[in-house]
Amino acid sequence: MRSFVVVAHTAPLQGGFSLDDLPGGAGRLDVLCRCATEAFLLSHGIRKDVTLHFVIRDQLILDLDGSHLRHLNPDERSTGALVRNALDAAHRQPREAKVVASPGISVRWGGLRDLVEDFRAAGRPLILLDERGEPLRSAELPPAPVFVLSDHKDFTPDEEKILDGAPRVSVGPRVLHGHQCITLVHNELDWREAGWKGGGN
Amino acid sequence: MRSFVVVAHTAPLQGGFSLDDLPGGAGRLDVLCRCATEAFLLSHGIRKDVTLHFVIRDQLILDLDGSHLRHLNPDERSTGALVRNALDAAHRQPREAKVVASPGISVRWGGLRDLVEDFRAAGRPLILLDERGEPLRSAELPPAPVFVLSDHKDFTPDEEKILDGAPRVSVGPRVLHGHQCITLVHNELDWREAGWKGGGN
Repeated sequence: MRSFVVVAHTAPLQGGFSLDDLPGGAGRLDVLCRCATEAFLLSHGIRKDVTLHFVIRDQLILDLDGSHLRHLNPDERSTGALVRNALDAAHRQPREAKVVASPGISVRWGGLRDLVEDFRAAGRPLILLDERGEPLRSAELPPAPVFVLSDHKDFTPDEEKILDGAPRVSVGPRVLHGHQCITLVHNELDWREAGWKGGGN
Repeated sequence: MRSFVVVAHTAPLQGGFSLDDLPGGAGRLDVLCRCATEAFLLSHGIRKDVTLHFVIRDQLILDLDGSHLRHLNPDERSTGALVRNALDAAHRQPREAKVVASPGISVRWGGLRDLVEDFRAAGRPLILLDERGEPLRSAELPPAPVFVLSDHKDFTPDEEKILDGAPRVSVGPRVLHGHQCITLVHNELDWREAGWKGGGN
């Protein structure tokens, strides 16, 4: 099992936005859409052993589960439509409920602290993706890691406090977009699962 | 210098498509848009030492040059608009001309053989991205490589013939989308340029 948490600071809490303007009117929702693509999509199929969690403005949590996910296509616009549908669903239900908006996508009210507590209670170790961290390629990685990254904004001091103590790894020498980091994490874990022992350059 | 060639089999030759339907009406233009994002975009800025070349239906070549590129945003829709603008420009000029459609994006009539001949004449070595190839991480890579990949379709027999003799490398144990392969190639070259010597797992 591999999980990713993306902390979203500007994405909308409601679905009333146009799919024609994901970067603008939808508060950089394009960033989250690309993260979903990279978290789940292989060339032919979906990574079933993956979950992805968006924490939006520390109020709403979208949980995406590869083992149940359907209708996820690689393009941003259709992913934006899935997210918009989930945001709509959140407002049609009591605030304490967790709602399945579409297969593999559920939504609940809560913040980063709630999600982190869930993972800690489940014994799932958090790892921050951070350009100042240890190189991913040589990092010791625990089983079933939960990689936490921020959207196009940095973590706030409050978020840093919640995540305090988690080790930090860096995907490479250049500072990349979050979705690119997800691709690189998957590749590293794919190589390790395939028994790659280093070598070469 | 790093270059990428994406051989596109279904993308349109003309600009008369809607940006609302890049995967459908625009013949999977979303695939090419993601390749452009991954070829050029860092978290804060553009990779200037990169060129990207789309060969569309073996008739039209779009050349994107990071050293001059402007207005490239991470989202697919705005990249689709840049490509559409370039396709329009191709039809406003004599067929033998190379036209600059916008800063860093030019377009010319020609096919894969023409582009490959250009690179060979310039002494630029071609490398195919192929899941059956040698692992990228341990592959010997020449300076200034040109990585060639196909869109969502396989290379045709004619294309295979044109590319015959080029070594093949695989980015990892799972078969990925083309844009993901570009991200992984950049990361490998970034590590090598930073003096990474392997180690770790």
